[in-house]
Parts: sequence; C-alpha cells; structure tokens
Amino acid sequence: MLNFTVGPVMSPEDVISVAGVSAPYFRTPEFSKTMLENEEMFLKLLNAPEGSRAVFLTASGTGAMESCVMNILSDKDKVIVINGGSFGERFAMLCRLHRKKYTEVKCEFGKQLTRGQLSGLEDHTALLINMHETSSGLLYDMKMVSQFCKENGILLIVDAISAFLADELDMTELNAAAVLTGSQKALACQPGVSLVALAPEALKRINDNEEVCMYLSLKDALINGVRGQTPFTPAVTILLQIHKRFEDIISCGGTKSEISRISKVAEQFREGIRDLPLMIVPENPSNAVTALTPLSKGAKEIVRILKEEYGIWVCPNGGDKADSVLRVGHIGHITYEDNKVLLDALCEMYISKRL
Amino acid sequence: MLNFTVGPVMSPEDVISVAGVSAPYFRTPEFSKTMLENEEMFLKLLNAPEGSRAVFLTASGTGAMESCVMNILSDKDKVIVINGGSFGERFAMLCRLHRKKYTEVKCEFGKQLTRGQLSGLEDHTALLINMHETSSGLLYDMKMVSQFCKENGILLIVDAISAFLADELDMTELNAAAVLTGSQKALACQPGVSLVALAPEALKRINDNEEVCMYLSLKDALINGVRGQTPFTPAVTILLQIHKRFEDIISCGGTKSEISRISKVAEQFREGIRDLPLMIVPENPSNAVTALTPLSKGAKEIVRILKEEYGIWVCPNGGDKADSVLRVGHIGHITYEDNKVLLDALCEMYISKRL
Repeated sequence: MLNFTVGPVMSPEDVISVAGVSAPYFRTPEFSKTMLENEEMFLKLLNAPEGSRAVFLTASGTGAMESCVMNILSDKDKVIVINGGSFGERFAMLCRLHRKKYTEVKCEFGKQLTRGQLSGLEDHTALLINMHETSSGLLYDMKMVSQFCKENGILLIVDAISAFLADELDMTELNAAAVLTGSQKALACQPGVSLVALAPEALKRINDNEEVCMYLSLKDALINGVRGQTPFTPAVTILLQIHKRFEDIISCGGTKSEISRISKVAEQFREGIRDLPLMIVPENPSNAVTALTPLSKGAKEIVRILKEEYGIWVCPNGGDKADSVLRVGHIGHITYEDNKVLLDALCEMYISKRL
Repeated sequence: MLNFTVGPVMSPEDVISVAGVSAPYFRTPEFSKTMLENEEMFLKLLNAPEGSRAVFLTASGTGAMESCVMNILSDKDKVIVINGGSFGERFAMLCRLHRKKYTEVKCEFGKQLTRGQLSGLEDHTALLINMHETSSGLLYDMKMVSQFCKENGILLIVDAISAFLADELDMTELNAAAVLTGSQKALACQPGVSLVALAPEALKRINDNEEVCMYLSLKDALINGVRGQTPFTPAVTILLQIHKRFEDIISCGGTKSEISRISKVAEQFREGIRDLPLMIVPENPSNAVTALTPLSKGAKEIVRILKEEYGIWVCPNGGDKADSVLRVGHIGHITYEDNKVLLDALCEMYISKRL
C-alpha cells in the first residue's frame, strides 16, 4: 500500500531496518548515550533556547498534550486554548478534565486565527495551540501568536505533532516554553513515542508543580533523562529509530532541508490537482497535509476507491466531516513518483466520473 | 548479544519480521479485525470469565498499573498493597499519589507472603499484587491470596507483567477483576504496549468512576475497543507483533505449553548452577527469572564480565541490591543452547575465580 495518511507514515528504509531486530536491553551506558544524543539532536533541530531539555514519552501525541497540561500549567493559570478543529478541541477537553481555568478561542474549520480574536485576552497566562491543526490542515499564524504571547508575558505551549520537520518552527524565535511532537509524523518512525522539548520557563514550572500522574510525569522523565534513561521501560526500538532518523536529517542539512523536501512534495501534489474537482480546505495549509473537499463526490467513497482499487491510503476525516473532507499527507518517505501514482489515480477517477 | 534480562527480551524470528516494515495506517477495518482478535486471544489465554474485556495501552507496565489504580479503585476503597520489592512499592506509591486509602503488607525481599500477614485486613475492599515480584523473582502464593479475596469479597487486581505466559494464571479460577501485562516480557514482542484484561466487576467500576486522566482512561479504551480501535494512535507495529505471537502460542497448544516451555528453560538453568557459588534468592521462584546472590564476588562485576567478555546480558538489580543481586531471565526466545552458553561462561568464570 502507498500511504498518504498523516500517520503512521512510510518510513525510510534505514529507519525501518532498525526495527527488524529484537529490542536490546536498555539499562546500559550504550542506550543512555543514544538517548542523550536523541535529546541533543531534537533540541538542535528545534533551535531550542539555551538550558532547554527534552523528554521522550512512550505515549501518543495526546499523552504528551495531557502531560504538558498536567505538569506545566497550574491552578493559578488563565489559559487560552485555540480551537479550530478536533485537536484544539482536545486541548480544551484536557483543560476541563484537569480543572484549569481556560478561555476557548474558536476558529472556523480551516480559517486562520486573527489578532482580533485574541483581543481582551491579554491578562491570560498561558496559550495552548496546535500549530498545525491536523484535522483541517491549517497552519496557524505562529508569528502573530508568538508576538501576542511575548507582548503579554504569556507562556506559549506549541503542539507541533504534525508540524515538526514539515513547517518552519524555531523554538527560540517563537519563545515557546514547550514544543511537542510524535514519532509517526514527519519524523517517519513507527508510532509509540512522543517528544517534548522544554524551555527553562517550563522546566521551572514542572519543578514547582505537584505530581498528578506518575506515568506522564515530566519531572520524573527529566530526572531520569539526565543519565539518558527513562523512568519506565520505553518503546526502545522506536527510540533507536528516532536516533537513526535524527542523524540522517542532520547529515542531510537539518530542519531546513527536510522542510524544503516535504514542501516540494506538497507543492507538486497541489499543482497536480489544480484541474480536479477538489477544493483545498484551509486558508494557509501546512506542508504536512492537504485537506480537500471533493466538489462532486463524497469523500468516503473516494477514500474507499483509492484504497481498494489503487492500493493507496489517504486519510478520511471523522465526525460530521467524514463525507465532506479527506486529507492527503505529504510527510514520511513519499517520493515524486509516489505523488504521480496518486495523481494518476485521481485523474483516472475524474475521467471515469468517480471524482 | 544473548539477552537473559527480564525485558525487553529476545523475540522469535516471525514476531520480529512483523516489525521490519512501515507501520500501516490503522483506522481501517483490517486493523480493527486484528485488534478484536487480539482482545479475544488475550482473554482466551487468560481464561478470563464470561463478559470480560481487554484493552491495549501504548504505555509501559507502570502505565497499566496506574491506569488500574485510577480507573478501577475509588475513594471509598480500602486497598491492601502487597509490597515485597520495587514493584510492590510502586503500587503503594500510586495509591499515595491518587489518594487511595491503603494498607501496605510488607514482605521481606524474596520471602513468601503468608495468610497470617493478611489477618485483620478482612474489611478491606481491594487488593493489589504483583503476582511475580520481578525485583526478587518471587512468585506469590496466588491460590492463598485468591482464596482470601474470595472469602472476604475483596476485589483482586493482579499485575502479571512478568508472570503472564511464564507462570500458571487462570483469571477465572483466581476470580481476578483485572490482570495486566506487557508486550516485552514472556509475550516476547518489542516494548511499548501494556495489556489489561478486565472482568465484569472491574468494568462496572470503570463505568461508575469519574475520569482522572484522558490518556490512561480505561473507559475510553473500552468504548473504542468495541470497534477494534484505540482512542489515540497506538504503537501499531507492536500490536501487530502481539497478534502474530498470540496466534503462534495458540497454535502451539496455548498457555500451558508456553509455560511448560519456559519452566523447562528455567529448570535447566537452575540445575546447571547447582554447584556454582550462586544462591537463589526467592523462596518460590517464578519461571520467568532466577534472582541470584553471588556468594564470593559482587553482582555488578559479574554482570559486567558477562556483558563485555561473553556478549551476554543478565539483569542487574537497582538500589541497595545492586551489588548483591543479579537476575537471569528465562522468558523470550531462549533455547537450551543459549542456556548452555551462559552456563559455560559462568563455569569458566568460576574456574578463573571471577565468580
């Protein structure tokens, strides 16, 4: 199957080959070294500020989102949650569950957040945003958001689960206190690990806050991370894959080249569908994915035909968007030739009036 | 390296081969079918009572332990925690963190729990036990514990992380409300997934209890599991490995044959060290591991020599037992020939006065 979903995605051959052996025992200096390098490379790729740390949780991106809400925020905070789709909604649910005072800023599906929407919220203390709202494919105006947070001394927590390595992201420039991502998005490893980078401001808060959950404790992860270890048995194989992938990315020119590679794959696809009855949903699409509304046919049927007749996975949407939106991912080991296979399939479907 | 630790362990070749490809997209009927079969096979291997369910968390065993404490127990419970080592201690810490009323029954390291120690605790409502306390290698007298719980209407939660498939475990016979295990122990898959089987009594409690944590919510996992899905992106590859492994175990005669295979590996090892200055620590050792106290030399140095000179990993202990206890695992893809390699190494070390 050709996989154009937004995760798990196709992995490069050398990352895959790491997985094809038994997981090694990990309470060893060798594994510690790997983990310390993982931390260093992740922070480097993010251009994290001096004094930052990173931890690796054996959990999905949601686990990392919840961990940040539990460990970084406190009851004194007044939190802004940007909600422009199902992942923004998840941040709101997490604030509700953990009894944080929060204000939701709702964005219409696929519509850009404006400075005006943040007016009146200057007295808040933290802001949670899914830099790329993966459900609509929209990339938020992070410069504006970051500026707003800087001006008002607001702590910025960035879910970059599907944006890291796909869209421009400089942790220092953004002045982000925390950035989180997952192993199975543009990092193109198997799913099971989420990564959290923490600037000194977040580290201080984690240290001051009371423990809420042992398994998702950032404090514990940070303490163990000093010696390159995790508090509990991690998904060892995936951590080894991440190490290989980080090395590859750095040796190929770092974040910028990887973003450029993915953006070209996205561009080629978007160019290729120009004459097809597919409308790009978001105002400002992320490089990671193109969310599309089919103008003539239902999304579900298109997803089905691609899968069953062409051996191609694209991503359906859930809930009330299930039949009106489908998503084509550009992350993972996708080549121009793969793109061409998908575009040819879509053209053929169009000619036979099934698109 | 030959891996004799207690996890991650060596995987059989056909389980490993499942991991050597990109993770497939998982919001599909095919993956749902795999997961429904995983649930069915897990419950079958445990002989879980009618009406039981099982969920698969992308988390370590500790994640599953915490999930059970958070989701099954309530503030009204009076909990007994059997604490005979670092994993019993962890259950106590979890009860403390989540403000459950609990009584700790301390067992000396490697010593069996007796009925007398439970006297006076008949008014309690739940009991948490690590069936095999992996730090000391002791297998608790589960018949006695189960009998005590049955007589007094006490809910029994069994951490079988390192006991499942290694030691006799019949969920119906034990009348256990929950049994949990991990992917990287006798299941011999890569680490990253923990499994929780839930009898109707536990299901009712989960349904009645308020949500504490989104990521470790058993309620959410159960609801999604009905259609063979997980609430969040799981460690897809490991779930596919588990499926393969369950199929293999069932086709080779089920739990009994697997336990018998592991117990023979353990027996052969224990027989082989009879004349060496190594004392077996626990009164009643699990088949999964043999914890040993070296009588002449320090444990750390023995672990180091085996690793560096023989390419063999055995498991060091942590904390104050680091130099007095080492552990040799018998789970995973260990053959009699592998055992012989380890025994030859130990004999050679003994002859050269390094054991």
